[in-house]
Amino acid sequence: MSNTFGDIFKITVFGDSHGKAIGCIVDGCIAGLEIDESFIQKELARRSAGNDFFSSARKEPDKFEILSGILDGKTTGGAIAFTIPNTNIKSEDYLNLDTLFRPSHADFTYFAKYGTTVSAGKLQASARIFAAVVLAGAIAKQMLQKFGISVYAFVDQIGPVSLGKSYKQIDAAAIELSPVRCPDKETSDKMLLELKNIKKNNDSVGGKICGVISGCEPGLGDPIFQKLQAKLAHAMFSINAVKGFEYGSGFNAAGMVGSQHNDIFAIKKNKLTTLTNNSGGIQGGITNGEDIYFNVAFKPAPSIAQVQKTVDRQAKPIEFIAKGRHDVCFVPRAVPIVEAMAALVVADAYLKHLSYAE
Amino acid sequence: MSNTFGDIFKITVFGDSHGKAIGCIVDGCIAGLEIDESFIQKELARRSAGNDFFSSARKEPDKFEILSGILDGKTTGGAIAFTIPNTNIKSEDYLNLDTLFRPSHADFTYFAKYGTTVSAGKLQASARIFAAVVLAGAIAKQMLQKFGISVYAFVDQIGPVSLGKSYKQIDAAAIELSPVRCPDKETSDKMLLELKNIKKNNDSVGGKICGVISGCEPGLGDPIFQKLQAKLAHAMFSINAVKGFEYGSGFNAAGMVGSQHNDIFAIKKNKLTTLTNNSGGIQGGITNGEDIYFNVAFKPAPSIAQVQKTVDRQAKPIEFIAKGRHDVCFVPRAVPIVEAMAALVVADAYLKHLSYAE
Amino acid sequence: MSNTFGDIFKITVFGDSHGKAIGCIVDGCIAGLEIDESFIQKELARRSAGNDFFSSARKEPDKFEILSGILDGKTTGGAIAFTIPNTNIKSEDYLNLDTLFRPSHADFTYFAKYGTTVSAGKLQASARIFAAVVLAGAIAKQMLQKFGISVYAFVDQIGPVSLGKSYKQIDAAAIELSPVRCPDKETSDKMLLELKNIKKNNDSVGGKICGVISGCEPGLGDPIFQKLQAKLAHAMFSINAVKGFEYGSGFNAAGMVGSQHNDIFAIKKNKLTTLTNNSGGIQGGITNGEDIYFNVAFKPAPSIAQVQKTVDRQAKPIEFIAKGRHDVCFVPRAVPIVEAMAALVVADAYLKHLSYAE
Amino acid sequence: MSNTFGDIFKITVFGDSHGKAIGCIVDGCIAGLEIDESFIQKELARRSAGNDFFSSARKEPDKFEILSGILDGKTTGGAIAFTIPNTNIKSEDYLNLDTLFRPSHADFTYFAKYGTTVSAGKLQASARIFAAVVLAGAIAKQMLQKFGISVYAFVDQIGPVSLGKSYKQIDAAAIELSPVRCPDKETSDKMLLELKNIKKNNDSVGGKICGVISGCEPGLGDPIFQKLQAKLAHAMFSINAVKGFEYGSGFNAAGMVGSQHNDIFAIKKNKLTTLTNNSGGIQGGITNGEDIYFNVAFKPAPSIAQVQKTVDRQAKPIEFIAKGRHDVCFVPRAVPIVEAMAALVVADAYLKHLSYAE
Repeated sequence: MSNTFGDIFKITVFGDSHGKAIGCIVDGCIAGLEIDESFIQKELARRSAGNDFFSSARKEPDKFEILSGILDGKTTGGAIAFTIPNTNIKSEDYLNLDTLFRPSHADFTYFAKYGTTVSAGKLQASARIFAAVVLAGAIAKQMLQKFGISVYAFVDQIGPVSLGKSYKQIDAAAIELSPVRCPDKETSDKMLLELKNIKKNNDSVGGKICGVISGCEPGLGDPIFQKLQAKLAHAMFSINAVKGFEYGSGFNAAGMVGSQHNDIFAIKKNKLTTLTNNSGGIQGGITNGEDIYFNVAFKPAPSIAQVQKTVDRQAKPIEFIAKGRHDVCFVPRAVPIVEAMAALVVADAYLKHLSYAE
Repeated sequence: MSNTFGDIFKITVFGDSHGKAIGCIVDGCIAGLEIDESFIQKELARRSAGNDFFSSARKEPDKFEILSGILDGKTTGGAIAFTIPNTNIKSEDYLNLDTLFRPSHADFTYFAKYGTTVSAGKLQASARIFAAVVLAGAIAKQMLQKFGISVYAFVDQIGPVSLGKSYKQIDAAAIELSPVRCPDKETSDKMLLELKNIKKNNDSVGGKICGVISGCEPGLGDPIFQKLQAKLAHAMFSINAVKGFEYGSGFNAAGMVGSQHNDIFAIKKNKLTTLTNNSGGIQGGITNGEDIYFNVAFKPAPSIAQVQKTVDRQAKPIEFIAKGRHDVCFVPRAVPIVEAMAALVVADAYLKHLSYAE
Repeated sequence: MSNTFGDIFKITVFGDSHGKAIGCIVDGCIAGLEIDESFIQKELARRSAGNDFFSSARKEPDKFEILSGILDGKTTGGAIAFTIPNTNIKSEDYLNLDTLFRPSHADFTYFAKYGTTVSAGKLQASARIFAAVVLAGAIAKQMLQKFGISVYAFVDQIGPVSLGKSYKQIDAAAIELSPVRCPDKETSDKMLLELKNIKKNNDSVGGKICGVISGCEPGLGDPIFQKLQAKLAHAMFSINAVKGFEYGSGFNAAGMVGSQHNDIFAIKKNKLTTLTNNSGGIQGGITNGEDIYFNVAFKPAPSIAQVQKTVDRQAKPIEFIAKGRHDVCFVPRAVPIVEAMAALVVADAYLKHLSYAE
Repeated sequence: MSNTFGDIFKITVFGDSHGKAIGCIVDGCIAGLEIDESFIQKELARRSAGNDFFSSARKEPDKFEILSGILDGKTTGGAIAFTIPNTNIKSEDYLNLDTLFRPSHADFTYFAKYGTTVSAGKLQASARIFAAVVLAGAIAKQMLQKFGISVYAFVDQIGPVSLGKSYKQIDAAAIELSPVRCPDKETSDKMLLELKNIKKNNDSVGGKICGVISGCEPGLGDPIFQKLQAKLAHAMFSINAVKGFEYGSGFNAAGMVGSQHNDIFAIKKNKLTTLTNNSGGIQGGITNGEDIYFNVAFKPAPSIAQVQKTVDRQAKPIEFIAKGRHDVCFVPRAVPIVEAMAALVVADAYLKHLSYAE
């Protein structure tokens, strides 16, 4: 525990790689919302590994089934439950891994916490549970669309290759055209080249994703412990392998002076706006109407096709090599997960916002 | 709302700068814990601005009063309530600020959310509420001490001046010897010089704090949405002015390969340990027994003694200069706040850990 | 929302009668607990309508499927997800009901809240969702058994027929021998006779269930707003059709004097006990080690095979008769639901209790 | 823990009888609400023991102090904190009680839970904490008034004396005219006579309160585990000494048939209404626009001026008599507490209701 996220728009996920299915329950979505199932399917497909050389193989794309909460294509106001069957279970791959603690995996900590004798990869540490999150995010996105809010993300860095452009300088429509979800053709090509090298070395590589939330009216979020940026950070660090989060000016702010960092208010087209956006769309924990943008850093996948040293469950030093195909880089596949978690945060904040009577 | 943080070890804070007092309620602390009030007072003093030239002036140090939950020097198991009187209220300073939206402050967003006609600085956006958090953190620290866990933090960067050393290379005992809470004498001096320049320019400057949690046994934290790093991130972004958070290898991980990033398990002195600690003491959201370390980036204080452009509440462009003394850099004073929030997260995780029966 | 109950041992249910399945996620159960699936199946069967004449017909007993959280017959510590397929969907029965607001059903309030154009019986108001609760309760019961705690309930009243005995005077083993779950043969027979009369009149009838929790050690529960009796009351009023809850001396206490009501402490077999148990095993919100016992009152089923007046969705007065077979009395089937909700409350309180370090 | 109640409109209370003050934090109240402090003071006075012969003596009425959240007579949207000083501390009265477990008090269970060596009356078991609840309720009532919702309660039974009238048959304006808060003069007089007898016998007596909530629009509350009646039950059982709760037809429903119990819908004055109100204003957990009414049963005060048997902390049987003046009957003083808890539940439900967009 706890597999639940959100206060009003709330999701509860379940699943492990050994079971029959993963899934989620979306509770608190508004009633009467039209749900486009093909959009959900598309979102799921974005997270599934494709035919690209840098992802671990899964033969079939994820299929989902709606169990409750949607009637005649519209939400009923009741809990929306989904399952995604585990069609491609190969837990035998983990059999030899059950005996040891893989480096930088959760095997040891799960053993310490649960006393489990099997690899954490079979349990809820499996990254696969985030397919359920993407699915819930697809519901959140459709609700947000109704409120004029959109969420997107793209790959900003893979290993040493960085985009070097702000989200304002790229074409969001180009994101899905790139196999690595980097909307700049030249950088995308460099990233692919880098990934080929990494793969040749039987290694993996980390990366960075930039996320953008547009269309939030001023007033979403709450002061003190429910600041919107705190909920976003909580959401992002809930994703496996995330090591850093920053929004607006981020870590650069540490090196800046106030006269340079302050966002000057001005009126444009009869609307209050800021001339710069170091605030990242949030001031005092509450949206100011500007774009919210943020970066999320991912570590390289810990499973690599190399001999590695570690210790087994009898505390004996050993060497091992993990079988099967591994992710050279899961960062491109994490893009829809970042979007989904962001959408869940904003959906929840939006509904809370409505409860603030005037 | 919501002014509450934590699930089992839970705090609720209150306060604004116009009221009689700020304070907090600590709920869920174990019973029978000896509380050293002088330690609490010392922690509070660490957050209060001192005589240093780079902090805003407050004439008197914060005093606190215990209202409930402690009997004969020990916790009773009931809610521990504290207040800190507002002895130095100068809300008249804000009077002229009530008419306009200060850049990079919460004035506009509070107006959008609450329809308020006064400066957010009078309301719960006031950084002063974190004195209450430090107080609650001082209770948490005393409980954690009983469980062998310690928490400390230090200033790692101010503007362009960086420490350039890991927490392992510094002497924690030297932190409080430095007026800027940087334990390296040479860097501390450079930071002070930088701050003098910034002050001369009537400007402010950002910075970075490194936090360390030692002594956590393996097994604290939970998978999926209650990962310890997610709670820490949530905690840190609850602090005013925080723009970035990373733990372990952090943003550097995005540029690394797996074979370099993986932390190899080994046995040292009959104890399982890792040869490196890119994981930052947390794997799969759960502590592995190694040190937890993290960085927090702060933006420069938005209040500066310069003429700034902005817009007033009638949407008219104006220029203004904020009266009074301002923080050149609040990062050194944020050190005990970072520690307090970290202590609250770990205290809560520790008590949840106990509920995990074996 | 909210479909979630509990803080540490937490369940989230979903389902409506029009969907493919109902189900639940049990989050926070201890790891390594052996789960007896046949026990779960038995509990489910207890809630399903049998061949008795007084229940609405369902052709097939509920079957469940475990989707996650159990590996090799033991809990993994991850979320345990279950589904129960809706094999016997007859939502066409509701078709004519979609046009009107059935008396004492949730049709009107669901319309007011969700703007729904269909009968609430198709939505989450369906009592069927409590099959999922029974399932979750079967997990909780197995965990509680490990801690020496047992939960049972029986029918104490149906319409005018009352048992007139305390739980101490009955044989719990006889409960399941009675078709109405009343352990006293003579009363059980009277109840059956009463039910036959009610059925002949095309009517339904209410009743009362007595629940008992044995084996709780002293110290479970929390003061103020988490009193164990408050959680039990919350749990019982979550069950459809519940109109009253009392524990220990209950409503009788209103007519008693202190000298008569006070439970005198004494030592028996080296154990502190009370000579009477008007406290119902709870003092100040916390268990004292004595049995917890309580009563739950149910209203008669609102669906009856009689012509009834009401108003349709166009606010026009009409008469209607609900088709299909109806529950003459659902109180006997509610016995396992009462037990399940009680078990969930105690399971959660027990795990919280463990987090209270000393 | 947990001293917090509510989700959006949320209160956190603190206090024990040995400390300097009790108090509460009200979080989530709407901004811009005018607060009438004299109303709060009046509500507090209603709970304080008066000059009546049947209440325990307190020399001074409770005074409160607002610490935050209200500026120029209006809520700011921030947490509203209040304290009530403990002016009349006589914990020496408890000194001899520290050595033993008083019958039907929380002394033993607090010892079991917290290992405390003092009487629970000094700790958070003190009924005095409900002065803070009344205060919070006074804020909730003022917010509800703005939304057209009113809450009141009266004494329906004291020991053997019952009112025997429904809330519809009494004059709410007469409640405060009666020293026992029973609006029927004849019954009130009988109750006073009964109380005199009880006092003569050095005994105490229980009673019952009827509460009424009027003016809720349809749609408040949520299905499954957030049914409005479940929240009300939770709220009422949070009050010390409550043994039973029923709403609408309550326990009588167990003896009724469906054709008699069903509330027929009809149109009156262009508004949908029900001809009877056995549903107590709630159907499927959601308000239907009719009055919500409920009964709450209280046990007699356990402190009586008689010699009682019990066991001391060394498990030795002893006899004792509690010094000081005791409540012959605290039920009349519990009326504002019942109202406050009900107001808190409805305030929270109302704000959640607003978050339900259409």
